Amino acid sequence: MSAVAPHPVPAPALAAARAALTERAPLVQCLTNSVVQTITANALLAAGAAPAMVDNVHESAAFAQIASAVLVNVGTLDDDRARAMGLAAQSADRSRTPWVLDPVAVGGLEFRTRVARDLLASSPTVVRGNASEVLGLAGAGSGGRGVDSTAGAEEAVEAARELSRRTGGAVAVSGVVDVLVHDGRTLRVSGGHVLLTRTTGAGCSLGALVAAYAAVEDDPLVAAAAAHVHVAIAAERAAARAARPGSFATAWIDELDAVDADAVRADLETSGRLA
Amino acid sequence: MSAVAPHPVPAPALAAARAALTERAPLVQCLTNSVVQTITANALLAAGAAPAMVDNVHESAAFAQIASAVLVNVGTLDDDRARAMGLAAQSADRSRTPWVLDPVAVGGLEFRTRVARDLLASSPTVVRGNASEVLGLAGAGSGGRGVDSTAGAEEAVEAARELSRRTGGAVAVSGVVDVLVHDGRTLRVSGGHVLLTRTTGAGCSLGALVAAYAAVEDDPLVAAAAAHVHVAIAAERAAARAARPGSFATAWIDELDAVDADAVRADLETSGRLA
Amino acid sequence: MSAVAPHPVPAPALAAARAALTERAPLVQCLTNSVVQTITANALLAAGAAPAMVDNVHESAAFAQIASAVLVNVGTLDDDRARAMGLAAQSADRSRTPWVLDPVAVGGLEFRTRVARDLLASSPTVVRGNASEVLGLAGAGSGGRGVDSTAGAEEAVEAARELSRRTGGAVAVSGVVDVLVHDGRTLRVSGGHVLLTRTTGAGCSLGALVAAYAAVEDDPLVAAAAAHVHVAIAAERAAARAARPGSFATAWIDELDAVDADAVRADLETSGRLA
Repeated sequence: MSAVAPHPVPAPALAAARAALTERAPLVQCLTNSVVQTITANALLAAGAAPAMVDNVHESAAFAQIASAVLVNVGTLDDDRARAMGLAAQSADRSRTPWVLDPVAVGGLEFRTRVARDLLASSPTVVRGNASEVLGLAGAGSGGRGVDSTAGAEEAVEAARELSRRTGGAVAVSGVVDVLVHDGRTLRVSGGHVLLTRTTGAGCSLGALVAAYAAVEDDPLVAAAAAHVHVAIAAERAAARAARPGSFATAWIDELDAVDADAVRADLETSGRLA
Repeated sequence: MSAVAPHPVPAPALAAARAALTERAPLVQCLTNSVVQTITANALLAAGAAPAMVDNVHESAAFAQIASAVLVNVGTLDDDRARAMGLAAQSADRSRTPWVLDPVAVGGLEFRTRVARDLLASSPTVVRGNASEVLGLAGAGSGGRGVDSTAGAEEAVEAARELSRRTGGAVAVSGVVDVLVHDGRTLRVSGGHVLLTRTTGAGCSLGALVAAYAAVEDDPLVAAAAAHVHVAIAAERAAARAARPGSFATAWIDELDAVDADAVRADLETSGRLA
Repeated sequence: MSAVAPHPVPAPALAAARAALTERAPLVQCLTNSVVQTITANALLAAGAAPAMVDNVHESAAFAQIASAVLVNVGTLDDDRARAMGLAAQSADRSRTPWVLDPVAVGGLEFRTRVARDLLASSPTVVRGNASEVLGLAGAGSGGRGVDSTAGAEEAVEAARELSRRTGGAVAVSGVVDVLVHDGRTLRVSGGHVLLTRTTGAGCSLGALVAAYAAVEDDPLVAAAAAHVHVAIAAERAAARAARPGSFATAWIDELDAVDADAVRADLETSGRLA
């Protein structure tokens, strides 16, 4: 008899989510920062989703009704974009369109912290950030160093659980080992590669992939886990053939395409990635 | 005796346009969406043109007078950018600077549809879009699925001809086989590769290349055809050595550089690409 | 006895700056144009710095106080971004945060020329541009052709010296041979590769790297020289294995990572790059 509880997300559900993503090609509306729009769109396309960067105040709410999922990433904000994000989030919430909040650099900077906290009222299906951002969003920390976390993922687990209780959705904390929580459940995902942290937009693309998975999988913890596993496997495969950040970024997009449901299934049988 | 009319664009004119692009290095002003600015600039540079992303309300009209050509792509809009586009298009029209309109996602979204239709008053030299966008711009369809077309190019041929009559310019409808129309002439360009549709900004870069060619070739149908042929040859060569979307995008930029006038000439002698 | 004065920047100082950049991982706030944000962030990450694109009016001044250095690049402007740049530059100046001004396309376009000249009042640590831009910023020229210079670097040396006297900082003029001036000293850096001019954002990334080096090296001429040498070595190594612009861009990011202090030291012993 093991003293360790089995992790709460069955591996077959993750492989099934990967298959569903390719089959259903969800339309993912992205309101995201200006630095990462290209890699975000390419990551979604590589995984089999269809990106649409509809982020202006005139169109964001209407599009959130017809999109399969919505990503809101506050990495670069101005007043209009913040307003468009609020409209999209409210519309997604009302239309039951799943949506993901990525609170980039929240905690240390007042404007975006206020914007991101206001967005919580629209009940994000998943919040994805690093430990400093999750602490900052929950009101429990003062932020990281720019986009880098100054805290480890485990330090943010309680804040993540508190956030999850408030939103009803899942919260995913990225770190060396990612920690995902929802509704009393906790899942840890290990692996990935340090070159992800040296590729601008890799974390933001992960947020977009969480949205894509949330479009094809109703359980937000399974959706978030499927995206984290997909990204981690692709990163490890990319790093095996590209040791420097420029070629790694290219290889990672290739591998997001190459990692299909069979690859996910095979990986989870042997990698010990989930705990 | 063949029952099929010969296509209206002589192959030597396309090779000559490719040579002229390299020789004259046209300065292409781009007012384009925030997702694709990097690949658009790199595609123009690879082909031999000089990109300049001058898209603010203070400078766009003045720059359109001195630019060799202007691209207006409505993929991401806000009020200021829409205003800058109107000013640039009017200035280009008055200055006889050729300009290209790319009506991204027009038809399904009200704001951009109104903006794009208003731009038609400035007589774009070429309109380039997918079938849903051309139908939406012409007022004959209700739009695609985000940036993806839900109609085939042939379904938009009549709308393209109607648009062409209104603007006096050419209209190019992208699809598995591209259909280009102008002034009673119809040209079909086949080839390219499905990986182009999995590379964000490839279609938008095609629009920019149409503008670059329109700067060095007065016949808008020849200019549009030269860009489509250039992109298709480069895509096929890229796909022959890169099977996944990340490395394909890099290889495609390489091949836009490598495909010179001789390569265009050799291709058209054997490919049967034009009809 | 040589009639030529030895150049004013000792090679060991450049290798030491490269080592310091990796060791201290400076946080570089970038207010830069929308075309080049991705490659700028990736170039900084590859070199060992931490980019943060905080460019809105609400946050730019506060962040400039805590950033290690600030880059202001006027390549794409609107009213709000121009205001955010002014606030960041003033805050950097007051906080003694080193900051770099990149006057993209200044001289030929009235709005950005006024914005960039106003920024000079905040005493940029380094100005980096091509000859037309430096002439335009100094009020001595009428601008280039879009982002391309229509003058050679040597033609802008006097304007650079005049600018340097006004700001108290260094001025770096990019060209086939780069010319850097500060406080009566003049340094020329040769090398690099023409493919840099066919990669959108390579020059803008150089500006960001100057900022990163200014965070770890107090002498602005040494900081600017270290960035120019780093970029030139990386470009030559990249061009040795990538002959076309798409793969060159990827290889250049790889080489910005690979070129460490030892590589800088070894290069400067034999390359004759400095004069």
